[in-house]
Amino acid sequence: MQQILQEIYEEIRPLLGEGEVASYIPQLAHISPQKFGMAVITIDGDCYSIGDAQEPFSIQSISKLFTLTMAMQNDDGSLWKRTGREPSGNAFNSLVQLEYENGIPRNPFINAGALVVTDLILTQLGNAKQAVLDFICALTDNLNISFNLAVAQSEASVGFRNKALAYFLKSFGNIYNNVESVLDAYFHHCSIEMSCLDLAKASLYLANKGLCPTTQQTIVTTRQTKYLNSLLLTCGTYDAVGDFAYRVGLPAKSGVGGGILAVMPNKFGICVWSPGLSPEGNSKAGTMALDLFTTKTGISIF
Amino acid sequence: MQQILQEIYEEIRPLLGEGEVASYIPQLAHISPQKFGMAVITIDGDCYSIGDAQEPFSIQSISKLFTLTMAMQNDDGSLWKRTGREPSGNAFNSLVQLEYENGIPRNPFINAGALVVTDLILTQLGNAKQAVLDFICALTDNLNISFNLAVAQSEASVGFRNKALAYFLKSFGNIYNNVESVLDAYFHHCSIEMSCLDLAKASLYLANKGLCPTTQQTIVTTRQTKYLNSLLLTCGTYDAVGDFAYRVGLPAKSGVGGGILAVMPNKFGICVWSPGLSPEGNSKAGTMALDLFTTKTGISIF
Amino acid sequence: MQQILQEIYEEIRPLLGEGEVASYIPQLAHISPQKFGMAVITIDGDCYSIGDAQEPFSIQSISKLFTLTMAMQNDDGSLWKRTGREPSGNAFNSLVQLEYENGIPRNPFINAGALVVTDLILTQLGNAKQAVLDFICALTDNLNISFNLAVAQSEASVGFRNKALAYFLKSFGNIYNNVESVLDAYFHHCSIEMSCLDLAKASLYLANKGLCPTTQQTIVTTRQTKYLNSLLLTCGTYDAVGDFAYRVGLPAKSGVGGGILAVMPNKFGICVWSPGLSPEGNSKAGTMALDLFTTKTGISIF
Amino acid sequence: MQQILQEIYEEIRPLLGEGEVASYIPQLAHISPQKFGMAVITIDGDCYSIGDAQEPFSIQSISKLFTLTMAMQNDDGSLWKRTGREPSGNAFNSLVQLEYENGIPRNPFINAGALVVTDLILTQLGNAKQAVLDFICALTDNLNISFNLAVAQSEASVGFRNKALAYFLKSFGNIYNNVESVLDAYFHHCSIEMSCLDLAKASLYLANKGLCPTTQQTIVTTRQTKYLNSLLLTCGTYDAVGDFAYRVGLPAKSGVGGGILAVMPNKFGICVWSPGLSPEGNSKAGTMALDLFTTKTGISIF
Repeated sequence: MQQILQEIYEEIRPLLGEGEVASYIPQLAHISPQKFGMAVITIDGDCYSIGDAQEPFSIQSISKLFTLTMAMQNDDGSLWKRTGREPSGNAFNSLVQLEYENGIPRNPFINAGALVVTDLILTQLGNAKQAVLDFICALTDNLNISFNLAVAQSEASVGFRNKALAYFLKSFGNIYNNVESVLDAYFHHCSIEMSCLDLAKASLYLANKGLCPTTQQTIVTTRQTKYLNSLLLTCGTYDAVGDFAYRVGLPAKSGVGGGILAVMPNKFGICVWSPGLSPEGNSKAGTMALDLFTTKTGISIF
Repeated sequence: MQQILQEIYEEIRPLLGEGEVASYIPQLAHISPQKFGMAVITIDGDCYSIGDAQEPFSIQSISKLFTLTMAMQNDDGSLWKRTGREPSGNAFNSLVQLEYENGIPRNPFINAGALVVTDLILTQLGNAKQAVLDFICALTDNLNISFNLAVAQSEASVGFRNKALAYFLKSFGNIYNNVESVLDAYFHHCSIEMSCLDLAKASLYLANKGLCPTTQQTIVTTRQTKYLNSLLLTCGTYDAVGDFAYRVGLPAKSGVGGGILAVMPNKFGICVWSPGLSPEGNSKAGTMALDLFTTKTGISIF
Repeated sequence: MQQILQEIYEEIRPLLGEGEVASYIPQLAHISPQKFGMAVITIDGDCYSIGDAQEPFSIQSISKLFTLTMAMQNDDGSLWKRTGREPSGNAFNSLVQLEYENGIPRNPFINAGALVVTDLILTQLGNAKQAVLDFICALTDNLNISFNLAVAQSEASVGFRNKALAYFLKSFGNIYNNVESVLDAYFHHCSIEMSCLDLAKASLYLANKGLCPTTQQTIVTTRQTKYLNSLLLTCGTYDAVGDFAYRVGLPAKSGVGGGILAVMPNKFGICVWSPGLSPEGNSKAGTMALDLFTTKTGISIF
Repeated sequence: MQQILQEIYEEIRPLLGEGEVASYIPQLAHISPQKFGMAVITIDGDCYSIGDAQEPFSIQSISKLFTLTMAMQNDDGSLWKRTGREPSGNAFNSLVQLEYENGIPRNPFINAGALVVTDLILTQLGNAKQAVLDFICALTDNLNISFNLAVAQSEASVGFRNKALAYFLKSFGNIYNNVESVLDAYFHHCSIEMSCLDLAKASLYLANKGLCPTTQQTIVTTRQTKYLNSLLLTCGTYDAVGDFAYRVGLPAKSGVGGGILAVMPNKFGICVWSPGLSPEGNSKAGTMALDLFTTKTGISIF
């Protein structure tokens, strides 16, 4: 396995720097496009990594996986009434479909859906910001994980599209709390910084039928694990889910910070990070690395 | 003429109460659906009216005509870069077209366009709220016209869709000032209360090649008058402009308060008010009354 | 008046050749972009013209005005159930709105609406092709007007978009006759060739309360005349109706052959022809010439 | 396994008759909604079935899987230029997205995409109709499989929406052959009749890394098998792929005849048939049966 990561690293290295680094806030724009890290952790505890796998980066939309997991844990039956679970066929921050479908986001991994999920957690748990951070720290057994407050602040100051989405949802009655509180929690979740190793570890419950090997706690049921993995596959990588499933063939969630977290059920979690993005918003080198990984190992869910 | 108004009143009376009164804020919801007023004022100063023509009502979107006129007066060339002048083919508060057309509203009479116009006036004049009110008072020679602060307050507290529109415009860079200031001015303009007589009088510059007969001041040029009247005809009555032009055949602007202000170039201004609305948001009895008016008089621009 | 036409010709001449000549069929592609003609005929019979005003050109979508007039003459009440009368806010051959609005075209001047109108005439009159040609010949008192069969043939061989529209309408149940027969009639109507003088003359019933001064026959009622003129204004110039009304201020119908036919109610008909088109499909020099005309004369409906 | 099928049958039986049987052609409308069959065949040749598993039914859109497989076998590199591989987020026969995306269908499993695939095969193989039938007969080792000519005929006579799609694609240049020939082949493929046992057997190459266990022939490469399975998962069940993956968790293709063919990679093919459809067009009882199957066995790709 370590050998395979090494091979991938060699093949990817000449391509680093391709794609656009997210530039809408200075904190993301200044990250070197040459960064590349990759980590695999099996449910038995074996751990393989390469490159900048220990360096924390902005997880951004990968946080949507953890907030959804928490919303499912505490769901009183309203979750799937307030968001769908279909791929969107549209850009992640589009308002069009939301209008045609009367304020019900297509799925919890587009921004509109994640705002609804954040609103749910806010209602369920009160302090949504801290609760999500605590949850992630527990999954990784790493208490050093934290918000990047400068990032959260920057996102709030330029996040007009997300504000528009949140007020639009509110106009349809699909945000229950104060819009500004929901946005505040949402921007903080996106600002959390974790390394590839942190994320691979945090994902293990999805590879282990819902049981976190680190804490030996049941995070979600076996059936919920299947649900989460299927949602990752059909909705986890923006408007490129078809292409991603085609090339990589693993359930995965990406973020504009350049991270992609993927899961091989019953086997391992895998995380890759490289900041250069495709037009759809997925890490270019990251997608390529995962493509090489499933090709070289012959391992995929298909 | 007075005879014709009388006839119309008789024919319309049995139909009063049809349509839905705007109910999103209590101040509008409580207006009696039986109200009906109509006023005609010619450029020579002749004045005819009937029913509740002297009772002030919430002008709502009719204010968009006055804000656009002011933005044209002070235009530095950016107005028609920041908004189009085509009918929208969509609901007045739709975000869909705005997304497809990258934040340029289709015309200044849908909400998105009026928010841009308000933003322009805010930049041009500083105190957009007072400036618009002063302008309207001057046009009507009536210093009693004022904001209904309870209405402005109510709109602000439930106007999530307009907030979404404003932040969406901001995300495209098409709002320059602080979003909350723009919304505050916008909600105040909508809350202005005027009677049919006030409005008919205020519109006379549009029937008089740009010259206000009341003040003998040139409000806009002859060419700008043609522009404004053409915009009223093609964009002034929400997503029913085709039907309205077909039946009534006059340039007009409607509001959800139930008012419709129309103009016969070179002849007169005419205003009708009745709170029951069609699904598109135009006064039902008002449209019918104007239809009867142009049919009975044989006067229309076509 | 002749003096004004002369001035316009001088001002327009340097701009001839701008815009794209329609090139989807060879017969249109080969027309010289330098062509320019203009004709005005008053309801009293005065006639003014300049340039290539006597040269027949392909009227294309201007035929939609005549087919609609005929459908209104023979309407059994189904016309306005099968087509709307609102501006489309979309390209003239778009299928999008048709899908959202379940097969009811927005208005009779976009292609989908004209196909429905053609289907109506086919049902009403049997031989839709000849009936329309006969109607036009009568209006102009010119028996030499005819189809260009090569043009009709070419349109049929490349008109896949119109075929798609027609079958789409059929799938919604909004075409009653055989699709291929409807398309055949439609393509023939578009292929009719007329000069500016012919068209200005043919339009006079619209300037004369429905009475054709040539034949002294009532073509439509006064009320229907108002209807037709309003539809021309709100829907007659593709997705540029707002801008056209703003600049020109006359009810008008344009065609991709480069013709624009306009009407000043109670005064005259006016036709201009120049093949170079704007992106929306209206003659560029033609629009400019009409803009100059209404500016110089101070005559418009606004 | 047989025991599990028996349990499913018991649980499903009370629900048979729910959902709408496809009714646009008489041949489908007359099928009893009480029909239910299910078959599982493993790559080792074990075979389990229940109910009407031997009764042939109209495979309809399941044919799209076989035509895509053939197009991939013969692909010269143009396949993925002429169709995307993203879920559509829209109805299977929508023209909207096709217009916005300039004639490139979102994926090969919506009707527009399958028409392009049929056009490709027509170019590659000449006789697309017979070639597809021969391919299916070989996969199943069953020479009795055939077209239902009455069904093909009926579809052709009412398939105006598909005609519209095909001409729309042609207008974008994305159909190379004669439109009527493409439609003829397409309607014939949809009319093929197979039983659950036939289909489960035919799918085994997808569970066996591309090798057909029946014929010991390599149908597609291991990598292409992954591609096909991922496309089934993200695009195979109309606008319900997210929900289907969530509940069932297997790559699958459904048809409006009521069949659903699914694959568990490295294990087995499974087919279920029951004619009552969900609003999205998938068999209601069939989806429920597969949901029960993956829940009871604990087997899914997630």
